[in-house]
Amino acid sequence: MSSSKTIRRLEVVSPVPADIDIANSVDPLPIAAIAEDLNLGSKHYDLYGKYKAKVLLSALDELQGSEDGYYVVIGGITPTPLGEGKSTTTVGLCQALGAFLDKKVVTCLRQPSQGPTFGIKGGAAGGGYSQVIPMDEFNLHLTGDIHAITAANNLLAAAIDTRIFHEASQSDKALFNRLCPPNKEGKRTFANIMFRRLQKLGISKTNPDELTPDEVKRFARLDIDPDSITWRRVMDVNDRFLRKITVGQGPDEKGMTRETGFDISVASEIMAVLALTTSLADMRERLGRMVVGNSKAGEPITADDLGVGGALTVLMKDAINPTLMQTLEGTPVLVHAGPFANIAHGNSSIVADKIALKLVGKGGFVVTEAGFGADIGTEKFMNIKCRYSGLVPQCAIVVATIRALKMHGGGPEVVAGKPLDHAYTTENVALVEAGCVNLARHIANSKAYGVNVIVAINKFATDTETEMNAVRTAALAAGAFDAVVCTHHAHGGKGAVDLGIAVQRACESQSGTLKFLYPLDIGIKEKIEAIAKSYGASGVEYSEQSEKQIEMYSKQGFSNLPICMAKTQYSFSHIASQKGAPSGFVLPIRDVRASIGAGFIYPLVGTMSTMPGLPTRPCFFEIDVDIATGKVLGLS
Amino acid sequence: MSSSKTIRRLEVVSPVPADIDIANSVDPLPIAAIAEDLNLGSKHYDLYGKYKAKVLLSALDELQGSEDGYYVVIGGITPTPLGEGKSTTTVGLCQALGAFLDKKVVTCLRQPSQGPTFGIKGGAAGGGYSQVIPMDEFNLHLTGDIHAITAANNLLAAAIDTRIFHEASQSDKALFNRLCPPNKEGKRTFANIMFRRLQKLGISKTNPDELTPDEVKRFARLDIDPDSITWRRVMDVNDRFLRKITVGQGPDEKGMTRETGFDISVASEIMAVLALTTSLADMRERLGRMVVGNSKAGEPITADDLGVGGALTVLMKDAINPTLMQTLEGTPVLVHAGPFANIAHGNSSIVADKIALKLVGKGGFVVTEAGFGADIGTEKFMNIKCRYSGLVPQCAIVVATIRALKMHGGGPEVVAGKPLDHAYTTENVALVEAGCVNLARHIANSKAYGVNVIVAINKFATDTETEMNAVRTAALAAGAFDAVVCTHHAHGGKGAVDLGIAVQRACESQSGTLKFLYPLDIGIKEKIEAIAKSYGASGVEYSEQSEKQIEMYSKQGFSNLPICMAKTQYSFSHIASQKGAPSGFVLPIRDVRASIGAGFIYPLVGTMSTMPGLPTRPCFFEIDVDIATGKVLGLS
Repeated sequence: MSSSKTIRRLEVVSPVPADIDIANSVDPLPIAAIAEDLNLGSKHYDLYGKYKAKVLLSALDELQGSEDGYYVVIGGITPTPLGEGKSTTTVGLCQALGAFLDKKVVTCLRQPSQGPTFGIKGGAAGGGYSQVIPMDEFNLHLTGDIHAITAANNLLAAAIDTRIFHEASQSDKALFNRLCPPNKEGKRTFANIMFRRLQKLGISKTNPDELTPDEVKRFARLDIDPDSITWRRVMDVNDRFLRKITVGQGPDEKGMTRETGFDISVASEIMAVLALTTSLADMRERLGRMVVGNSKAGEPITADDLGVGGALTVLMKDAINPTLMQTLEGTPVLVHAGPFANIAHGNSSIVADKIALKLVGKGGFVVTEAGFGADIGTEKFMNIKCRYSGLVPQCAIVVATIRALKMHGGGPEVVAGKPLDHAYTTENVALVEAGCVNLARHIANSKAYGVNVIVAINKFATDTETEMNAVRTAALAAGAFDAVVCTHHAHGGKGAVDLGIAVQRACESQSGTLKFLYPLDIGIKEKIEAIAKSYGASGVEYSEQSEKQIEMYSKQGFSNLPICMAKTQYSFSHIASQKGAPSGFVLPIRDVRASIGAGFIYPLVGTMSTMPGLPTRPCFFEIDVDIATGKVLGLS
Repeated sequence: MSSSKTIRRLEVVSPVPADIDIANSVDPLPIAAIAEDLNLGSKHYDLYGKYKAKVLLSALDELQGSEDGYYVVIGGITPTPLGEGKSTTTVGLCQALGAFLDKKVVTCLRQPSQGPTFGIKGGAAGGGYSQVIPMDEFNLHLTGDIHAITAANNLLAAAIDTRIFHEASQSDKALFNRLCPPNKEGKRTFANIMFRRLQKLGISKTNPDELTPDEVKRFARLDIDPDSITWRRVMDVNDRFLRKITVGQGPDEKGMTRETGFDISVASEIMAVLALTTSLADMRERLGRMVVGNSKAGEPITADDLGVGGALTVLMKDAINPTLMQTLEGTPVLVHAGPFANIAHGNSSIVADKIALKLVGKGGFVVTEAGFGADIGTEKFMNIKCRYSGLVPQCAIVVATIRALKMHGGGPEVVAGKPLDHAYTTENVALVEAGCVNLARHIANSKAYGVNVIVAINKFATDTETEMNAVRTAALAAGAFDAVVCTHHAHGGKGAVDLGIAVQRACESQSGTLKFLYPLDIGIKEKIEAIAKSYGASGVEYSEQSEKQIEMYSKQGFSNLPICMAKTQYSFSHIASQKGAPSGFVLPIRDVRASIGAGFIYPLVGTMSTMPGLPTRPCFFEIDVDIATGKVLGLS
């Protein structure tokens, strides 16, 4: 029995009820009790209602001297439409460690986008008896971080178009006069932020009146090339009609129309900045150096050039604090950031992990989830997130299910709405064994980072002992430290005790350093090729456009950034239908883009949708408030 | 000395420092202490950080038996570019009542839009020694209500375009099949919300399979006329390039482009709903009956027809709880809702006022501010807000300044950036007396509602005794209960003690009922004409378009709603330059629109901008975070 005071025992029911019914069957503890159990002083967190709190970065300062706990990342085999239960495993493992194995543990999860909650997908708080609660608060506004991102992203967008507009309609002198207006005594001053642009231009003068006409022009005229603008507006709603739009059609905008579009908010570079930042000062710099496009002369134009980097930081200053919640069994969860896993790195925040590692301390565990399969999520966790954080994981988990492995082994196609093929619900060891090639490559890739790899077999009722043994054998053969069957969906933490024990052993026997897949100081192409090789590709093919972009970013001095591959999650290769472990293919790079503020270059392998749509009958038809109790109905 | 435990005494400095410096010179009290001083049980509020709390509607249930306090509305003379200090007076009066006159008092204010904070206007938390603190939290995200409005507004917008898209590409049968898909057993069910549409159509069947083909078609096909859509998207950012846009230009949207645009979030009908709702159940109904456009047959299409009224309520369920903050002198403030004062009614929320009236109890005071001049703000407070709330005010204040009255009396034009004309800074009794025609009409109009009217003369250093006496004489002659000089900007609550005493006398001697300007059961035109008459108009002129709209709304059964006139705030008439008290003009109605969910018809007298822009050097250039302390810099 745990020494923690907040641990709750679940009374599980079979068959497992609907997620929302389980979530609603447990009264969450006051979040202050969870914080207290973590020895988090009340000055280091702010309550947001009764069941959420923002943990302040000041907690890190106070805990500076403490040792870090063990650091575990959860990835998965290549995803299938059948679902692998990665979030559920993350939560279940932590419930086991905290509620059954008497360990200090913190789960670090991404905040889901609110858009899909009302669309097709439903919520993302885990499932069955392994969930984060309250589920509605987790899936809806939470503590406003995504809203802050939306506001900051769109303030920058407005600043871009407005600046172009004002530059087009004013002379250099008038423009400068408006940017640095004389005060009542006729004296001009630069705003503090303007010194950033002056420095970039190599102008060291501090008195606006001393600028030469040429310096006035260079300072005041950003001269943004409208065709080069990569900054789009965002909205946390599935609104497909905003994917491509024309703005500026009002009579007062003088015909300065421009084609652009909206992405869903979590696709904003600001989300990636939030996930990768390490402090308030670091966030200020990252937000300021975000590149929105180029000048007509080909120079990158930043948020600070537009004068808005400080305001963006102000909008994001509370968002930098992770949100504390709890699992069904009363263990603590930090929810923070939720960047895309293709055009961004798909991992929760560095600051949440850092705080969590200090809070659990030596011998404690922090379990953090990486998006998509391990080829994408774990790879980016290691090469991007850990590179920026300096943190070193001891253990990487690969979550697998029997049915998904069968699909990778050549099982029949799965069609939504149609009953599942017989092959998936009855024993078929051959299919499982064939599918283990996928698992094996993920194990080998993960192991190469210098961590112990554990396979978590997320068991379904119809899976047989023989099938599970086949996976175990294949996993160990591929170099896994262990492979463990778990039933946390049906049993909560109790169902993941064996996994917890394995994770503990794996962490205790590993104290190596992190071996990156590529160093930063090689060329962009070499880095792309190193990642492509880990996918099984025999080579890389660059489009003309991508060659041009690589050349441009190299010339602009950005070639030392890590690479964030935007590839389909449904295959190691670029072709979603290639299950298993394809190899020998040539990976085509269609285009190359960059999130300079967040700090990575992202090659596009195929087309990535950054704005989902709504089906004919979206989830919102079911969602309502019980007006008597105020409870949310119909969330799934 | 007050019996309240939270009262703070200010040490005032002369000349008055910058607003932000005063705000930062005072350490706010923990908001829990403010709540406790109001006898608000901890189960009736949720903390949002240390200095903000959301007061839950459950507080109203518990206080059901208590008597209401006195109810005071603050309006102003017709605004001028010189500013009248209405918010500052609202805060200063409450500081006087609470910190010097030992009264229970709650200030009810609107939440400002975040957009203008980064644009031209700066913040809106009062000024000088009469402010709401912390100023940055007041002006930025607050507790997320406007973000919730943005999310809900845009979910509805996405639902409209997507529904049109899906209806265009599917047969009746396929559409119905998607809306009511069979479950695994082949059985179809209606979502609960669908019964609202079925009822509207007069279909009482509960089994989808029993609908006739004609009923299937009527149920499944909203048949929205794209040209009739009045619902626009919103964003809480000053983004002029979104005023008019074309959406749906992506290749997957099959050429279904449409011209539309964005308003700033506070212009959303959902903001007006939030301000006018009286309970969670009432909000659910109002959100569901919002009309987004017409079917091609001319029937109004609602959010509930689209199946999204429940989801909108879920997004707004926390926003319905007002936010508790504090003044510089430690008196409580409820910040809630901030609808436009032209296309909406410009008043803070009914629920905040209701809670406040119960919290202060018998003999206590609730002071609530109405937007723009009394012709608009107070008129809409009485005829729209109080009509829906059933609350009865005892006192209406008209805030005036000597310099603004001089302008109404024919003083020279004021140009931004140029020094103020001599006439405004030296004694000129004749100009003041001439300007009092404006004040007199506001007094007479306010008095007609059956309240005592007090003029608050917001004193500037250069105002003379003779000038102030002239205002006092004119005010009393026009029927004011009293006219009082106040200096709360320079002195905090102490400077508004005389005003506080006058307000107390005015409230104690008034116990009448509210006399509305018009009954609801007359025609739309008759109501418009009653309001126009209060402006001094001799008649009303309707455009062809407005005639058409009035006919349509009458036919659709909406003629019994109150009227919310969208008129310039700078004159009693429709011509902003007509200062003083113009009369005999004919008020032109350009168009007539409706916010059916919020519950009013709004005639447009002229063009109202619903999306501000950014200047060449917006406020954001000054705004940054002090990375050492985390404090916000440069807010004004």
